Amino acid sequence: MQAGKPILYSYFRSSCSWRVRIALALKSIDYEMVTVNLIKDGGQQFSEEFQALNPMKQVPALKIDGITIGQSLAIIEYLEETRPTPRLLPQDPKKRAHVRMISDLIASGIQPLQNLSVLKQVGQEKQLSWAQQVISSGFNALERILQSTAGKYCVGDEVSMADLCLVPQVANADRYKVDLTPYPTISRINKSLLTLEAFQVSHPCRQPDTPPELRA
Amino acid sequence: MQAGKPILYSYFRSSCSWRVRIALALKSIDYEMVTVNLIKDGGQQFSEEFQALNPMKQVPALKIDGITIGQSLAIIEYLEETRPTPRLLPQDPKKRAHVRMISDLIASGIQPLQNLSVLKQVGQEKQLSWAQQVISSGFNALERILQSTAGKYCVGDEVSMADLCLVPQVANADRYKVDLTPYPTISRINKSLLTLEAFQVSHPCRQPDTPPELRA
Repeated sequence: MQAGKPILYSYFRSSCSWRVRIALALKSIDYEMVTVNLIKDGGQQFSEEFQALNPMKQVPALKIDGITIGQSLAIIEYLEETRPTPRLLPQDPKKRAHVRMISDLIASGIQPLQNLSVLKQVGQEKQLSWAQQVISSGFNALERILQSTAGKYCVGDEVSMADLCLVPQVANADRYKVDLTPYPTISRINKSLLTLEAFQVSHPCRQPDTPPELRA
Repeated sequence: MQAGKPILYSYFRSSCSWRVRIALALKSIDYEMVTVNLIKDGGQQFSEEFQALNPMKQVPALKIDGITIGQSLAIIEYLEETRPTPRLLPQDPKKRAHVRMISDLIASGIQPLQNLSVLKQVGQEKQLSWAQQVISSGFNALERILQSTAGKYCVGDEVSMADLCLVPQVANADRYKVDLTPYPTISRINKSLLTLEAFQVSHPCRQPDTPPELRA
């Protein structure tokens, strides 16, 4: 059951998959990747085979230590508890609370409202303004929070789970042409994080399933 | 700074507030409640005073130990770390992963898509079918997951954070007239949990801000 490397089910453009790819890279965890194309064949996440693995029909999912975990933050918390170095949650409970609050703000308060399946339901003509409104509204709150929690990164000067959520969300904001000038703190932290190797190797433009025209 | 009881900012009908009220009750934490009416005066969460406290303009928020935490799961994790008895996360990391996966499935995968502010944007005529679709889709996945994780409750036989998410989400399902017959495991666990005192005293029908016609 427990033999073999962890297997990450991932899609290059999925911001939630990217969060987990960063965690795996930061913790130097060797893994295999199975790519799940969310668009091709009407969405490979809807296959019976994948649904058996993750009934939510979403990426990421991680097979590890004999179990399969869905939900990116649950995966990251599991990695943190079983592979604690380097830590992605600070030692101080109050700082941990800040990290989790920022992570949840993005993972529950922004991303789900602008993901592919919701935008499909919203309809083509309203998609862009819907996504922009959702992201801007979340970023207004986030910018204000970061002004009191941030050091070099989202919470103090150590990379944390909050940063793993921030960078992929800023990439989504770019994709939907959100004006980032009202968010100097978000922009500054994002820029610093993108210089780190773990954020670069996990980037959507460098994945095995990245289409040639989006590679960098 | 740290003097005084924790203060919970809550709205009787907010399912995320209910999660935290259950945690506080289970852990026998004495607290004060400030009610925030999400409908009255155009929504009291939009007041400058409340925004300063929680820039996300959402309940719940908890003032505790000199900090203010937003996001219900971040609050519950903080309570778990600082007031560990009784535990709301199992000791075994794999079971903890299951608890967090189920919690996130509800907190990121269902609730945000059917909350008041989203339904407002969806528009009156589509609201009900939108909420039903979102909840059913999440419950299809959840039912399947629970079939392998559940004992008496969502994960094994101990009440966990996952249960604190389940019961309020089932109440939302009821509110939006979702047919629960396809979800026998969800229904069974919900029924068991509702017999527990912590779930009863925290119930939306028994809060200081519950309107008389909804009291029970």
